[in-house]
Amino acid sequence: MRQAGRYLPEYRDIRGKAQGFLELCYSPEAAAEVTLQPIRRFGMDAAILFADILLLPDALGQKLEYREGEGPVLEPVRDETAVAALRPQVIHERLAPVYETVERVAGALPDDVALIGFAGAPWTVATYMVEGHATKEFMEPRLWALRDPGGFGRLIDLLTETTTEYLSRQIEAGAHAVQLFDSWAGVLSDSQFARWCIAPTRSIVGRLKRRFPEVPVIGFPRGAGVKTAEYAAATGIDGVGIDTSVPVWWATEELQQSVAVQGNLDPLALVAGGQAMEGQAREILECLSYGPFVFNLGHGIVPQTPPEHVAALSDLIRNWRA
Amino acid sequence: MRQAGRYLPEYRDIRGKAQGFLELCYSPEAAAEVTLQPIRRFGMDAAILFADILLLPDALGQKLEYREGEGPVLEPVRDETAVAALRPQVIHERLAPVYETVERVAGALPDDVALIGFAGAPWTVATYMVEGHATKEFMEPRLWALRDPGGFGRLIDLLTETTTEYLSRQIEAGAHAVQLFDSWAGVLSDSQFARWCIAPTRSIVGRLKRRFPEVPVIGFPRGAGVKTAEYAAATGIDGVGIDTSVPVWWATEELQQSVAVQGNLDPLALVAGGQAMEGQAREILECLSYGPFVFNLGHGIVPQTPPEHVAALSDLIRNWRA
Repeated sequence: MRQAGRYLPEYRDIRGKAQGFLELCYSPEAAAEVTLQPIRRFGMDAAILFADILLLPDALGQKLEYREGEGPVLEPVRDETAVAALRPQVIHERLAPVYETVERVAGALPDDVALIGFAGAPWTVATYMVEGHATKEFMEPRLWALRDPGGFGRLIDLLTETTTEYLSRQIEAGAHAVQLFDSWAGVLSDSQFARWCIAPTRSIVGRLKRRFPEVPVIGFPRGAGVKTAEYAAATGIDGVGIDTSVPVWWATEELQQSVAVQGNLDPLALVAGGQAMEGQAREILECLSYGPFVFNLGHGIVPQTPPEHVAALSDLIRNWRA
Repeated sequence: MRQAGRYLPEYRDIRGKAQGFLELCYSPEAAAEVTLQPIRRFGMDAAILFADILLLPDALGQKLEYREGEGPVLEPVRDETAVAALRPQVIHERLAPVYETVERVAGALPDDVALIGFAGAPWTVATYMVEGHATKEFMEPRLWALRDPGGFGRLIDLLTETTTEYLSRQIEAGAHAVQLFDSWAGVLSDSQFARWCIAPTRSIVGRLKRRFPEVPVIGFPRGAGVKTAEYAAATGIDGVGIDTSVPVWWATEELQQSVAVQGNLDPLALVAGGQAMEGQAREILECLSYGPFVFNLGHGIVPQTPPEHVAALSDLIRNWRA
């Protein structure tokens, strides 16, 4: 999950000066600065690249706009003609500033702080590309996938290829680990999940592993619930992110035997602070910190989060078993 | 899940004549008619009362309005003063037309067709009462629950009491089974789920069982994922609804040993029809129909659903193993 964001006054300063959200993502100096801000303030063990999962569709030539208070709006891709009009050959031209951001951050971080790059997983990126905006249900991509799996599959294949290339370049630029966000995995039934979430993820992980066998890949199939175990076992990932709804005792039993687990404090517990936050954080640590584990939130940090709560949480984690 | 709805032309006829959605819910003749429409057309084994989970807050005196294209809008209840202003003593006056609808439907149904009454579960009803409208995140109720569990608990207690009374009256009026919809159970972490979803549900089921030991109670903790097993074991319910994301093989192993399972066709597979629908329906039947089971959708039917797909699905289910 993004560490930088509107909850930090120093982020709002830079964001206020940028022309727009996309411009900020494509400005290496500013994007590197906001990536480093939370590390300077809280001293986390890893920095998370400041970017956005929709940079890939943008680089593929799909029209994308961020409207204030409305989120992303894209010119929908809903048939094979629209898929054929995307330009996978030229993505690196548009994405070059992201790779430069990675280089700058990797150069600026202390030796003991890792840099995590990321991309959206094909299913989740496709939901935005097909629907054209964020919704609760993503009817259009789900219907396309059910009615015409061959046609929809061509979009997923194209995203599988280009996501692999995008993450490879992030690694070459200095990312120590990469993460795939499948934020909308939870709307899929079992067989659709196998086809549109597990299969493309396995393909991306396999190709990355052949090129960069030492670089950990983390997957986050948000809302996958019970299916998270199959995802962890079948994709070849090194770590799996769990959302707030997943019980940590279950993650210990069903996931942590084979992969590292990353999660899963309720972002609203971080807003509430005090007992609510400390209680849940301790429960997570008590359950998961005896196996391979990355402490994280179960979903994105929200703008209302008081930075002093993040500082208190960082202290709690750092002093755990100290 | 509601069977009636905008996908049926005969529903749209009646809805067009009603003054508004709430008026339709409170008109026994019209509400009974729309409850019976899908039974006449498709011949299901059970009818589902046409009503809404927000009738209870309305009956408690909270201001509620349905705005076209926007959904429900309520005057938010966000502190104990607002909770104290609710009027649990008088709910049956306002809800009397619902009980009359139940009587009418029970009287009109053939002997071999059951009538299922329902209410929202306390957590889900509270999310709307506190937030004031539908959102993806329900920040206000989740923050209140974390910051002031005592105060928020008083709202949950009041809803637990009144929901029990509301369902008791539905049973007395002729409902053969009742269902509790916890549509927003999925946003809760493990400990919050135990406190705000499992505990009030167990209390309602316990009280209903003392009064009506023979009446089945079904619970639907949407999005609960892994925690559905604990919910089924700890609440005393007779049946558990599973959403589309839950794999049926898991439901067979972890739920169907102790309770009946209800689910879980993707509503969009019903829109798509053909292979996509038949394949998933057969998979569900093959897995779940050898134990206690109610065929259902995994979420509400959508307005775009062609009625002929519902007819084809009903035939497929009726002819299963025939």
